[in-house]
Amino acid sequence: MYEIPVIPGDGIGPEIINEGKKVIESAAATENFNVEWKEYPYGAEHYLETGETLPESALKELSQYDAIYMGSVGDPRVEPGVLEKGILLKLRFYFDQYVNLRPVKLLPGVECPLREPGNIDFTVIRENTEDFYVGVGGRAKKGKTKNTLEIERKLYNLKFDLDIESDSDEIAYQLGVISEEGAKRVTKYAFDHAQKRKDDRVTAVDKANVLSDIYGFWRQKIEEISEEYPEIEHEFNYVDAATMWFVKNPEWYQTIVTPNMFGDIITDLGAMIQGGLGLAPGGNINPEGTSMFEPIHGSAPKHAGENKVNPIATIWAGALLLDHLGEQKAKKRIVKAISQVLEEGKIKTYDLGGNASTTKMGDAIAERVKNV
Amino acid sequence: MYEIPVIPGDGIGPEIINEGKKVIESAAATENFNVEWKEYPYGAEHYLETGETLPESALKELSQYDAIYMGSVGDPRVEPGVLEKGILLKLRFYFDQYVNLRPVKLLPGVECPLREPGNIDFTVIRENTEDFYVGVGGRAKKGKTKNTLEIERKLYNLKFDLDIESDSDEIAYQLGVISEEGAKRVTKYAFDHAQKRKDDRVTAVDKANVLSDIYGFWRQKIEEISEEYPEIEHEFNYVDAATMWFVKNPEWYQTIVTPNMFGDIITDLGAMIQGGLGLAPGGNINPEGTSMFEPIHGSAPKHAGENKVNPIATIWAGALLLDHLGEQKAKKRIVKAISQVLEEGKIKTYDLGGNASTTKMGDAIAERVKNV
Ligand SMILES: CC(C)[C@H](C(=O)O)[C@@H](O)C(=O)O
Ligand SMILES: CC(C)[C@H](C(=O)O)[C@@H](O)C(=O)O
Repeated sequence: MYEIPVIPGDGIGPEIINEGKKVIESAAATENFNVEWKEYPYGAEHYLETGETLPESALKELSQYDAIYMGSVGDPRVEPGVLEKGILLKLRFYFDQYVNLRPVKLLPGVECPLREPGNIDFTVIRENTEDFYVGVGGRAKKGKTKNTLEIERKLYNLKFDLDIESDSDEIAYQLGVISEEGAKRVTKYAFDHAQKRKDDRVTAVDKANVLSDIYGFWRQKIEEISEEYPEIEHEFNYVDAATMWFVKNPEWYQTIVTPNMFGDIITDLGAMIQGGLGLAPGGNINPEGTSMFEPIHGSAPKHAGENKVNPIATIWAGALLLDHLGEQKAKKRIVKAISQVLEEGKIKTYDLGGNASTTKMGDAIAERVKNV
Repeated sequence: MYEIPVIPGDGIGPEIINEGKKVIESAAATENFNVEWKEYPYGAEHYLETGETLPESALKELSQYDAIYMGSVGDPRVEPGVLEKGILLKLRFYFDQYVNLRPVKLLPGVECPLREPGNIDFTVIRENTEDFYVGVGGRAKKGKTKNTLEIERKLYNLKFDLDIESDSDEIAYQLGVISEEGAKRVTKYAFDHAQKRKDDRVTAVDKANVLSDIYGFWRQKIEEISEEYPEIEHEFNYVDAATMWFVKNPEWYQTIVTPNMFGDIITDLGAMIQGGLGLAPGGNINPEGTSMFEPIHGSAPKHAGENKVNPIATIWAGALLLDHLGEQKAKKRIVKAISQVLEEGKIKTYDLGGNASTTKMGDAIAERVKNV
């Protein structure tokens, strides 16, 4: 018996989460365990009514759980960044979900936008709490500007007292930070993941030739950790080149480890080469704490209420969630059910070239889960 | 009569530059102007012999010219970053080449890695002197660390005195900077470019929802400049989403303006969707100073001396150079010649699926230039 907190969120969030819940319930019934949901109202509506994004009290409550199931946040009525930072990034940071695990797998039956996709099947392990996502920056004007910037995280407390001398009218700046422990723990996770998958290679993606301070440090930590895994090769790619290889030669990749910002970019590209955002799930994992599972797409406000979008990313995220809870059999059922329904190609949502509804796709997978 | 300084550089650099010169000479002869070359030896060999990358004296000399023709730098014997920063980025920064202009055009006859490419024909205007390329960062240890970081640029002098309090073992950080003038001038260039091309839209690519300090500022400046161009629409894309659209719907784009680092990433992806790095030219432009034209690919050391790689990116960069010098007719001749040779498909280098040599491709285009 598991109690799972759910944040359906905005736009299409509630619709896709419904299908995710449906499929998880079906898998649970088949594998003989129980799931109960605890719904949380956070998102645009709640913010517009109360001014709060995700209050401390809710975070405290959520911290009792192993895994949160999340739809998507973002709403045109709210300034960009507010809900993303106040809810999505807040969960990642508060719970120190330092691994953002994003499988990139082209399933059978899915049309790939690449002419010759080959066998696309890799995992991006994106660092999820540091880098340019620390949210520290500011502005300075001609003359002297003083600024104090603070970051408070599980892993460190940092205070930057900046004393800026500028002869320019106005500048804006942004700081990225990577800590030793931050780089090491996610790299360790990536090598462990590669080991479990029997991969022979980990590719680290960065831009150490230009952003040498931060990513030179990152590379050093990767080198250090790699020594603990002599049987797994590792290599370094520059992020610009990696985006090319995603298109040209994606079958090369097995396990990728990358800092937060580049991870954000290459996993959207990864989603596209696996057939689109409608198919791309993500896990935000703290192996010792509270994790969170979500589709990697946004809230698609223009399709809200249309019962139209593809729920597979969310359903797949649900499978990752069950895996995280230790329900490997249920996870496998769901992934197999998704694969089979896609391969048969009878039920297709609009992004896959069909006109099946969100619900219809969810129903089909929930049903299939029982007999795979 | 033009005197043009040339830096062939490393790896395949000398081979591709030879073809570029050949084609420029052919276009010059046909259009009745003269070109003389002034060769500079900078690159790995020179660095290994003398320890200098690009000395101040050379920069002074180069500053007398309107346009430099560049091959590529980078060599496995030299630590990554040294030549890139010491030569390539040095030229961009020293000469304040604030526009990195990168056309992304799928030419007829070129096989695109995308299944349904549509009409790919847009320009990325990448800011080329600021953002995370300012090269400012460092490390800090537990306790108190003091650091002074300075940036000296045409546009501004900045001094950051950092006083860092940390409770983490070790961290590394990196700073990005965008100045008001820096954002405005490149945006103006992008809108002017859109106007010239009769585009109806400029797309600005950033990540303002997360790196809000630096890119919130960037967006403001874009909004301000856009008011001077009421007849051109503008829109904002997040960089992660942009990489998806490059694959899914590249015909949407017309003129893109983007900060340095994201520009680096999306133009490599852009090169791939236009048929590969062998076809992608770039101009590093200071409209009032010394500009530099180059292929956007690297020095491909493993192919050095093989007379194998595709010289088209470099030849096309030569066309952009002539355009910059005011030789529009010669430029058009070269671009047409490239297009025709590609469309006929009789001469193909290995990257295009053939086995023609670098020289053969160069000869064919140089010949064609005379009769287009
Ligand atoms: C919505 C946004 C803050 C988020 C990110 O940048 O991480 C999203 O793009 C993602 O990849 O989950
Ligand atoms: C070689 C490197 C420094 C350079 C860059 O990052 O700008 C290259 O990738 C480019 O795009 O011209």
